Amino acid sequence: MTDAENRGFTLWFTGIPGSGKTTLAEMAMNEIHDRGVKAELLDGDVIELNLNKGLGYSKDDIITGIKRVGFVCHLLSRNGVVAIASATSPYREARDENRRMIGSFVEVFVKCPPETCAKRCSKDVNKGPHDTGKKGCDGGTGPYEEPLNPDVIVETDRETREDGLARIIKKLEAMGYIPKKEKKTRGALQKEEIYSVEEEEKIKERLKELGYI
Amino acid sequence: MTDAENRGFTLWFTGIPGSGKTTLAEMAMNEIHDRGVKAELLDGDVIELNLNKGLGYSKDDIITGIKRVGFVCHLLSRNGVVAIASATSPYREARDENRRMIGSFVEVFVKCPPETCAKRCSKDVNKGPHDTGKKGCDGGTGPYEEPLNPDVIVETDRETREDGLARIIKKLEAMGYIPKKEKKTRGALQKEEIYSVEEEEKIKERLKELGYI
Repeated sequence: MTDAENRGFTLWFTGIPGSGKTTLAEMAMNEIHDRGVKAELLDGDVIELNLNKGLGYSKDDIITGIKRVGFVCHLLSRNGVVAIASATSPYREARDENRRMIGSFVEVFVKCPPETCAKRCSKDVNKGPHDTGKKGCDGGTGPYEEPLNPDVIVETDRETREDGLARIIKKLEAMGYIPKKEKKTRGALQKEEIYSVEEEEKIKERLKELGYI
Repeated sequence: MTDAENRGFTLWFTGIPGSGKTTLAEMAMNEIHDRGVKAELLDGDVIELNLNKGLGYSKDDIITGIKRVGFVCHLLSRNGVVAIASATSPYREARDENRRMIGSFVEVFVKCPPETCAKRCSKDVNKGPHDTGKKGCDGGTGPYEEPLNPDVIVETDRETREDGLARIIKKLEAMGYIPKKEKKTRGALQKEEIYSVEEEEKIKERLKELGYI
Protein backbone atom coordinates (compact mmCIF):
# COMPACT_ATOMS: atom_id res chain seq x y z
CA MET A 1 0.00 0.00 0.00
CA THR A 2 1.39 3.43 -0.87
CA ASP A 3 1.45 6.39 1.48
CA ALA A 4 -1.33 8.08 -0.43
CA GLU A 5 -3.59 5.08 0.00
CA ASN A 6 -2.91 4.93 3.70
CA ARG A 7 -3.48 8.58 4.51
CA GLY A 8 -6.58 9.37 6.51
CA PHE A 9 -8.44 12.65 6.07
CA THR A 10 -11.87 14.15 6.46
CA LEU A 11 -14.03 15.15 3.51
CA TRP A 12 -16.67 17.50 4.88
CA PHE A 13 -19.73 18.41 2.79
CA THR A 14 -21.58 21.50 3.96
CA GLY A 15 -24.59 23.22 2.41
CA ILE A 16 -28.25 23.95 3.01
CA PRO A 17 -30.81 21.11 2.99
CA GLY A 18 -31.65 20.02 -0.51
CA SER A 19 -28.37 21.25 -1.96
CA GLY A 20 -27.25 17.71 -2.80
CA LYS A 21 -24.60 17.04 -0.14
CA THR A 22 -25.42 13.41 0.53
CA THR A 23 -25.73 12.49 -3.17
CA LEU A 24 -22.25 13.87 -3.78
CA ALA A 25 -20.89 12.34 -0.57
CA GLU A 26 -22.14 8.87 -1.55
CA MET A 27 -20.64 9.21 -5.02
CA ALA A 28 -17.34 10.34 -3.51
CA MET A 29 -17.35 7.37 -1.13
CA ASN A 30 -17.84 4.90 -3.99
CA GLU A 31 -15.07 6.55 -5.98
CA ILE A 32 -12.70 6.42 -2.97
CA HIS A 33 -13.60 2.77 -2.22
CA ASP A 34 -12.87 1.95 -5.87
CA ARG A 35 -9.30 3.05 -5.26
CA GLY A 36 -8.92 0.56 -2.42
CA VAL A 37 -9.05 3.21 0.29
CA LYS A 38 -11.09 2.72 3.48
CA ALA A 39 -13.86 5.28 3.89
CA GLU A 40 -16.82 5.78 6.21
CA LEU A 41 -19.80 8.01 5.45
CA LEU A 42 -21.52 9.90 8.23
CA ASP A 43 -24.63 11.42 6.75
CA GLY A 44 -27.87 12.79 8.16
CA ASP A 45 -29.59 9.53 9.05
CA VAL A 46 -26.50 7.85 10.48
CA ILE A 47 -25.66 10.91 12.54
CA GLU A 48 -29.19 11.40 13.82
CA LEU A 49 -29.59 7.76 14.83
CA ASN A 50 -26.17 7.05 16.29
CA LEU A 51 -24.62 10.26 17.47
CA ASN A 52 -26.91 13.22 17.88
CA LYS A 53 -30.10 11.74 19.30
CA GLY A 54 -31.43 14.05 21.97
CA LEU A 55 -29.87 17.24 20.67
CA GLY A 56 -32.29 20.07 19.97
CA TYR A 57 -32.35 22.98 17.54
CA SER A 58 -30.67 25.68 19.59
CA LYS A 59 -27.42 27.15 18.26
CA ASP A 60 -25.55 25.47 21.12
CA ASP A 61 -27.02 22.05 20.34
CA ILE A 62 -26.31 22.38 16.64
CA ILE A 63 -22.69 23.34 17.37
CA THR A 64 -22.38 20.40 19.79
CA GLY A 65 -23.63 18.14 16.99
CA ILE A 66 -21.17 19.51 14.40
CA LYS A 67 -18.25 19.11 16.80
CA ARG A 68 -19.33 15.60 17.77
CA VAL A 69 -19.35 14.49 14.15
CA GLY A 70 -15.97 16.21 13.83
CA PHE A 71 -14.61 14.24 16.79
CA VAL A 72 -15.62 10.93 15.20
CA CYS A 73 -14.10 12.03 11.87
CA HIS A 74 -10.92 12.92 13.78
CA LEU A 75 -10.69 9.44 15.34
CA LEU A 76 -11.10 7.81 11.94
CA SER A 77 -8.80 10.18 10.04
CA ARG A 78 -5.88 9.89 12.42
CA ASN A 79 -6.06 6.11 12.01
CA GLY A 80 -5.75 6.17 8.24
CA VAL A 81 -9.46 6.03 7.41
CA VAL A 82 -11.21 8.55 5.16
CA ALA A 83 -14.13 10.07 7.07
CA ILE A 84 -16.82 11.59 4.88
CA ALA A 85 -19.36 13.82 6.59
CA SER A 86 -22.50 15.19 5.00
CA ALA A 87 -24.05 17.69 7.36
CA THR A 88 -25.63 21.10 6.85
CA SER A 89 -23.29 22.32 9.61
CA PRO A 90 -24.46 25.91 9.28
CA TYR A 91 -21.96 27.54 11.67
CA ARG A 92 -18.61 28.51 10.18
CA GLU A 93 -16.79 28.67 13.51
CA ALA A 94 -17.77 25.07 14.35
CA ARG A 95 -16.63 23.82 10.95
CA ASP A 96 -13.37 25.73 11.30
CA GLU A 97 -12.83 24.21 14.75
CA ASN A 98 -13.15 20.78 13.20
CA ARG A 99 -10.60 21.76 10.56
CA ARG A 100 -8.16 22.89 13.24
CA MET A 101 -8.66 19.70 15.27
CA ILE A 102 -8.43 17.29 12.35
CA GLY A 103 -5.80 19.02 10.23
CA SER A 104 -6.30 16.85 7.14
CA PHE A 105 -9.64 18.43 6.39
CA VAL A 106 -11.16 19.06 2.96
CA GLU A 107 -14.25 21.25 2.94
CA VAL A 108 -16.69 20.96 0.05
CA PHE A 109 -19.27 23.72 -0.15
CA VAL A 110 -22.34 22.36 -1.93
CA LYS A 111 -23.88 25.57 -3.21
CA CYS A 112 -27.41 25.93 -4.48
CA PRO A 113 -29.99 28.76 -4.31
CA PRO A 114 -32.52 28.27 -1.47
CA GLU A 115 -35.48 28.37 -3.88
CA THR A 116 -34.02 25.52 -5.97
CA CYS A 117 -33.29 23.51 -2.82
CA ALA A 118 -36.83 24.10 -1.58
CA LYS A 119 -38.23 22.68 -4.82
CA ARG A 120 -36.08 19.58 -4.45
CA CYS A 121 -37.18 19.12 -0.88
CA SER A 122 -40.41 17.28 -1.47
CA LYS A 123 -39.67 14.62 1.10
CA ASP A 124 -39.30 15.23 4.81
CA VAL A 125 -35.81 13.80 4.84
CA ASN A 126 -33.81 16.74 6.02
CA LYS A 127 -34.52 17.41 9.62
CA GLY A 128 -32.77 17.30 12.91
CA PRO A 129 -30.04 19.14 14.73
CA HIS A 130 -27.39 18.39 12.10
CA ASP A 131 -29.47 20.37 9.69
CA THR A 132 -30.25 24.05 9.37
CA GLY A 133 -31.71 24.24 12.82
CA LYS A 134 -35.32 24.22 11.66
CA LYS A 135 -37.43 21.12 11.59
CA GLY A 136 -38.13 19.87 8.11
CA CYS A 137 -36.43 20.65 4.85
CA ASP A 138 -36.79 24.39 4.74
CA GLY A 139 -34.56 24.91 1.76
CA GLY A 140 -32.16 27.03 3.69
CA THR A 141 -34.28 29.68 5.33
CA GLY A 142 -32.56 28.77 8.61
CA PRO A 143 -29.25 30.42 9.45
CA TYR A 144 -26.42 29.29 7.21
CA GLU A 145 -22.92 30.74 7.16
CA GLU A 146 -21.18 30.02 3.86
CA PRO A 147 -17.55 28.86 4.00
CA LEU A 148 -15.06 31.66 3.28
CA ASN A 149 -12.34 29.41 1.90
CA PRO A 150 -13.77 26.04 0.96
CA ASP A 151 -11.40 23.61 -0.77
CA VAL A 152 -14.00 22.86 -3.44
CA ILE A 153 -17.28 24.55 -4.42
CA VAL A 154 -19.89 22.51 -6.28
CA GLU A 155 -22.81 24.50 -7.69
CA THR A 156 -25.46 21.84 -8.03
CA ASP A 157 -27.86 24.08 -9.98
CA ARG A 158 -25.22 24.85 -12.62
CA GLU A 159 -23.26 21.65 -13.14
CA THR A 160 -23.97 17.94 -13.22
CA ARG A 161 -23.22 15.87 -10.16
CA GLU A 162 -20.66 13.96 -12.23
CA ASP A 163 -18.77 17.16 -13.06
CA GLY A 164 -18.89 18.23 -9.42
CA LEU A 165 -17.63 14.85 -8.27
CA ALA A 166 -14.82 14.88 -10.84
CA ARG A 167 -13.57 18.19 -9.43
CA ILE A 168 -13.67 16.89 -5.85
CA ILE A 169 -11.74 13.76 -6.82
CA LYS A 170 -9.19 15.74 -8.83
CA LYS A 171 -8.60 17.96 -5.80
CA LEU A 172 -8.09 14.94 -3.52
CA GLU A 173 -5.64 13.45 -6.00
CA ALA A 174 -3.78 16.74 -6.29
CA MET A 175 -3.53 16.99 -2.49
CA GLY A 176 -2.08 13.47 -2.42
CA TYR A 177 -4.94 12.11 -0.31
CA ILE A 178 -6.03 9.42 -2.74
CA PRO A 179 -4.19 7.50 -5.44
CA LYS A 180 -5.13 7.83 -9.10
CA LYS A 181 -7.65 5.32 -10.28
CA GLU A 182 -6.26 2.07 -11.61
CA LYS A 183 -7.69 0.67 -14.82
CA LYS A 184 -7.24 -2.78 -16.23
CA THR A 185 -5.20 -3.16 -19.40
CA ARG A 186 -4.36 -6.60 -20.73
CA GLY A 187 -5.09 -8.11 -17.32
CA ALA A 188 -2.49 -5.99 -15.53
CA LEU A 189 -3.17 -3.05 -13.22
CA GLN A 190 -1.68 0.18 -14.46
CA LYS A 191 -2.17 3.87 -13.84
CA GLU A 192 -4.58 5.81 -16.01
CA GLU A 193 -1.86 7.67 -17.89
CA ILE A 194 -1.96 4.73 -20.35
CA TYR A 195 -4.95 3.35 -22.25
CA SER A 196 -8.07 2.15 -20.47
CA VAL A 197 -9.93 -1.03 -21.48
CA GLU A 198 -12.43 1.06 -23.46
CA GLU A 199 -9.71 3.04 -25.20
CA GLU A 200 -7.85 -0.13 -26.04
CA GLU A 201 -10.98 -1.62 -27.60
CA LYS A 202 -11.38 1.45 -29.77
CA ILE A 203 -7.75 1.28 -30.89
CA LYS A 204 -8.13 -2.44 -31.65
CA GLU A 205 -11.27 -1.78 -33.75
CA ARG A 206 -9.51 1.00 -35.64
CA LEU A 207 -6.50 -1.21 -36.33
CA LYS A 208 -8.84 -3.95 -37.54
CA GLU A 209 -10.62 -1.50 -39.82
CA LEU A 210 -7.27 -0.50 -41.26
CA GLY A 211 -6.36 -4.12 -41.76
CA TYR A 212 -3.35 -4.13 -39.44
CA ILE A 213 -4.65 -6.90 -37.18
CA MET B 1 1.94 -6.33 8.54
CA THR B 2 0.39 -9.65 9.53
CA ASP B 3 -3.34 -10.33 9.67
CA ALA B 4 -3.27 -10.31 13.46
CA GLU B 5 -1.76 -6.83 13.50
CA ASN B 6 -4.34 -5.54 11.10
CA ARG B 7 -7.44 -6.93 12.77
CA GLY B 8 -9.68 -4.41 14.47
CA PHE B 9 -11.72 -5.28 17.52
CA THR B 10 -13.31 -3.65 20.55
CA LEU B 11 -11.99 -4.13 24.05
CA TRP B 12 -14.78 -3.10 26.40
CA PHE B 13 -14.11 -2.53 30.11
CA THR B 14 -17.22 -2.57 32.29
CA GLY B 15 -17.50 -2.28 36.07
CA ILE B 16 -18.73 0.03 38.79
CA PRO B 17 -17.02 3.39 39.38
CA GLY B 18 -13.75 3.00 41.25
CA SER B 19 -13.25 -0.59 40.13
CA GLY B 20 -10.15 0.35 38.13
CA LYS B 21 -11.44 0.19 34.54
CA THR B 22 -9.56 3.16 33.15
CA THR B 23 -6.26 2.21 34.81
CA LEU B 24 -6.43 -1.21 33.17
CA ALA B 25 -7.67 0.24 29.87
CA GLU B 26 -4.72 2.67 29.71
CA MET B 27 -2.26 -0.12 30.48
CA ALA B 28 -3.86 -2.30 27.82
CA MET B 29 -3.61 0.51 25.28
CA ASN B 30 0.10 0.98 25.94
CA GLU B 31 0.69 -2.75 25.64
CA ILE B 32 -1.23 -2.88 22.35
CA HIS B 33 0.59 0.19 20.97
CA ASP B 34 3.89 -1.50 21.87
CA ARG B 35 2.99 -4.24 19.44
CA GLY B 36 2.61 -1.76 16.61
CA VAL B 37 -1.18 -1.97 16.57
CA LYS B 38 -3.37 1.13 16.25
CA ALA B 39 -5.62 1.69 19.26
CA GLU B 40 -7.92 4.45 20.51
CA LEU B 41 -9.10 4.79 24.10
CA LEU B 42 -12.58 6.12 24.84
CA ASP B 43 -12.76 6.64 28.56
CA GLY B 44 -15.00 8.63 30.87
CA ASP B 45 -13.63 12.11 30.23
CA VAL B 46 -13.27 11.68 26.47
CA ILE B 47 -16.79 10.26 26.19
CA GLU B 48 -18.35 12.93 28.38
CA LEU B 49 -16.67 15.79 26.52
CA ASN B 50 -16.98 14.58 22.93
CA LEU B 51 -19.90 12.19 22.67
CA ASN B 52 -22.37 12.17 25.51
CA LYS B 53 -22.68 15.83 26.48
CA GLY B 54 -26.32 16.61 27.19
CA LEU B 55 -27.38 13.10 28.13
CA GLY B 56 -28.95 12.74 31.55
CA TYR B 57 -29.11 9.98 34.14
CA SER B 58 -32.29 8.20 33.12
CA LYS B 59 -32.03 4.55 32.05
CA ASP B 60 -32.86 5.59 28.47
CA ASP B 61 -30.13 8.21 28.39
CA ILE B 62 -27.56 5.86 29.88
CA ILE B 63 -28.42 3.21 27.27
CA THR B 64 -28.21 5.82 24.48
CA GLY B 65 -24.75 6.71 25.77
CA ILE B 66 -23.54 3.08 25.88
CA LYS B 67 -24.78 2.43 22.35
CA ARG B 68 -23.26 5.66 21.06
CA VAL B 69 -19.83 4.67 22.38
CA GLY B 70 -20.47 1.24 20.82
CA PHE B 71 -21.20 2.84 17.45
CA VAL B 72 -17.90 4.73 17.48
CA CYS B 73 -16.06 1.54 18.53
CA HIS B 74 -17.79 -0.23 15.65
CA LEU B 75 -16.59 2.35 13.10
CA LEU B 76 -13.02 2.04 14.35
CA SER B 77 -13.01 -1.77 14.70
CA ARG B 78 -14.31 -2.46 11.23
CA ASN B 79 -11.52 -0.32 9.83
CA GLY B 80 -8.75 -2.28 11.52
CA VAL B 81 -8.34 -0.09 14.59
CA VAL B 82 -8.53 -1.42 18.16
CA ALA B 83 -11.20 0.53 20.05
CA ILE B 84 -10.82 0.45 23.82
CA ALA B 85 -13.81 1.62 25.85
CA SER B 86 -13.81 2.20 29.57
CA ALA B 87 -17.38 2.86 30.68
CA THR B 88 -19.41 1.69 33.66
CA SER B 89 -22.07 0.66 31.11
CA PRO B 90 -24.36 -0.80 33.78
CA TYR B 91 -26.98 -2.35 31.48
CA ARG B 92 -26.26 -5.84 30.19
CA GLU B 93 -28.64 -5.63 27.25
CA ALA B 94 -26.95 -2.48 25.92
CA ARG B 95 -23.50 -4.08 26.22
CA ASP B 96 -24.77 -7.21 24.51
CA GLU B 97 -26.25 -5.12 21.70
CA ASN B 98 -22.83 -3.59 21.14
CA ARG B 99 -21.33 -7.09 21.04
CA ARG B 100 -23.85 -8.16 18.41
CA MET B 101 -23.26 -5.05 16.31
CA ILE B 102 -19.46 -5.11 16.51
CA GLY B 103 -18.82 -8.85 16.40
CA SER B 104 -15.15 -8.67 17.33
CA PHE B 105 -15.94 -7.69 20.89
CA VAL B 106 -13.96 -8.61 24.01
CA GLU B 107 -15.68 -7.80 27.29
CA VAL B 108 -13.56 -7.32 30.39
CA PHE B 109 -15.49 -7.30 33.65
CA VAL B 110 -13.53 -5.26 36.18
CA LYS B 111 -14.87 -6.68 39.42
CA CYS B 112 -14.45 -5.12 42.82
CA PRO B 113 -16.71 -4.94 45.91
CA PRO B 114 -18.67 -1.67 46.13
CA GLU B 115 -17.22 -0.81 49.56
CA THR B 116 -13.65 -1.10 48.22
CA CYS B 117 -14.54 1.02 45.19
CA ALA B 118 -16.16 3.61 47.44
CA LYS B 119 -12.94 3.90 49.47
CA ARG B 120 -10.92 4.42 46.29
CA CYS B 121 -13.30 7.09 45.08
CA SER B 122 -11.88 10.05 46.89
CA LYS B 123 -11.87 12.28 43.85
CA ASP B 124 -14.93 13.44 41.99
CA VAL B 125 -13.74 11.86 38.75
CA ASN B 126 -16.46 9.36 38.05
CA LYS B 127 -19.61 11.10 37.12
CA GLY B 128 -21.87 11.52 34.16
CA PRO B 129 -24.25 9.44 32.12
CA HIS B 130 -21.58 6.93 31.10
CA ASP B 131 -21.32 6.00 34.75
CA THR B 132 -23.65 4.26 37.16
CA GLY B 133 -26.42 6.72 36.59
CA LYS B 134 -25.83 8.58 39.83
CA LYS B 135 -23.87 11.78 39.98
CA GLY B 136 -20.49 11.38 41.60
CA CYS B 137 -18.48 8.30 42.33
CA ASP B 138 -20.97 6.34 44.38
CA GLY B 139 -18.91 3.18 44.47
CA GLY B 140 -21.57 1.21 42.70
CA THR B 141 -24.74 1.83 44.68
CA GLY B 142 -26.42 2.68 41.36
CA PRO B 143 -27.89 -0.14 39.28
CA TYR B 144 -25.24 -2.42 37.80
CA GLU B 145 -25.88 -5.63 35.91
CA GLU B 146 -22.82 -7.88 35.94
CA PRO B 147 -21.85 -9.57 32.65
CA LEU B 148 -22.99 -13.22 32.47
CA ASN B 149 -20.22 -14.35 30.11
CA PRO B 150 -17.39 -11.83 30.10
CA ASP B 151 -14.30 -12.81 28.14
CA VAL B 152 -12.03 -11.83 31.04
CA ILE B 153 -12.71 -11.06 34.70
CA VAL B 154 -10.21 -8.98 36.63
CA GLU B 155 -10.76 -8.82 40.38
CA THR B 156 -8.94 -5.66 41.30
CA ASP B 157 -9.21 -6.23 45.04
CA ARG B 158 -7.57 -9.66 44.78
CA GLU B 159 -4.87 -9.35 42.15
CA THR B 160 -2.37 -6.74 41.00
CA ARG B 161 -3.17 -4.63 37.98
CA GLU B 162 -0.14 -6.18 36.26
CA ASP B 163 -1.53 -9.69 36.75
CA GLY B 164 -4.94 -8.60 35.50
CA LEU B 165 -3.41 -6.93 32.46
CA ALA B 166 -1.30 -10.01 31.69
CA ARG B 167 -4.44 -12.14 31.57
CA ILE B 168 -6.22 -9.68 29.25
CA ILE B 169 -3.24 -9.58 26.89
CA LYS B 170 -2.89 -13.37 26.94
CA LYS B 171 -6.55 -13.66 26.00
CA LEU B 172 -6.16 -11.21 23.10
CA GLU B 173 -3.12 -13.12 21.85
CA ALA B 174 -4.97 -16.43 22.14
CA MET B 175 -7.90 -15.00 20.16
CA GLY B 176 -5.49 -13.88 17.44
CA TYR B 177 -6.36 -10.22 17.89
CA ILE B 178 -2.84 -9.00 18.67
CA PRO B 179 0.59 -10.37 17.80
CA LYS B 180 2.95 -11.61 20.47
CA LYS B 181 5.36 -9.01 21.78
CA GLU B 182 8.66 -8.70 19.98
CA LYS B 183 11.84 -8.41 22.00
CA LYS B 184 15.29 -7.39 20.81
CA THR B 185 17.99 -10.05 20.79
CA ARG B 186 21.39 -9.36 19.25
CA GLY B 187 19.91 -6.38 17.40
CA ALA B 188 17.36 -8.51 15.57
CA LEU B 189 13.63 -8.63 16.25
CA GLN B 190 12.45 -12.06 17.27
CA LYS B 191 9.43 -13.52 19.08
CA GLU B 192 9.54 -13.93 22.84
CA GLU B 193 9.95 -17.70 22.72
CA ILE B 194 13.70 -17.09 22.70
CA TYR B 195 15.86 -15.09 25.16
CA SER B 196 15.23 -11.45 25.92
CA VAL B 197 18.04 -8.88 26.18
CA GLU B 198 17.94 -9.18 29.98
CA GLU B 199 18.02 -12.96 29.88
CA GLU B 200 20.88 -12.91 27.43
CA GLU B 201 22.84 -10.56 29.68
CA LYS B 202 22.37 -12.97 32.59
CA ILE B 203 23.49 -15.92 30.48
CA LYS B 204 26.52 -13.98 29.30
CA GLU B 205 27.47 -13.06 32.87
CA ARG B 206 27.10 -16.68 33.98
CA LEU B 207 29.23 -17.88 31.09
CA LYS B 208 31.88 -15.29 32.01
CA GLU B 209 31.82 -16.43 35.63
CA LEU B 210 32.36 -19.98 34.46
CA GLY B 211 35.23 -18.87 32.26
CA TYR B 212 33.68 -19.92 28.98
CA ILE B 213 33.78 -16.44 27.38
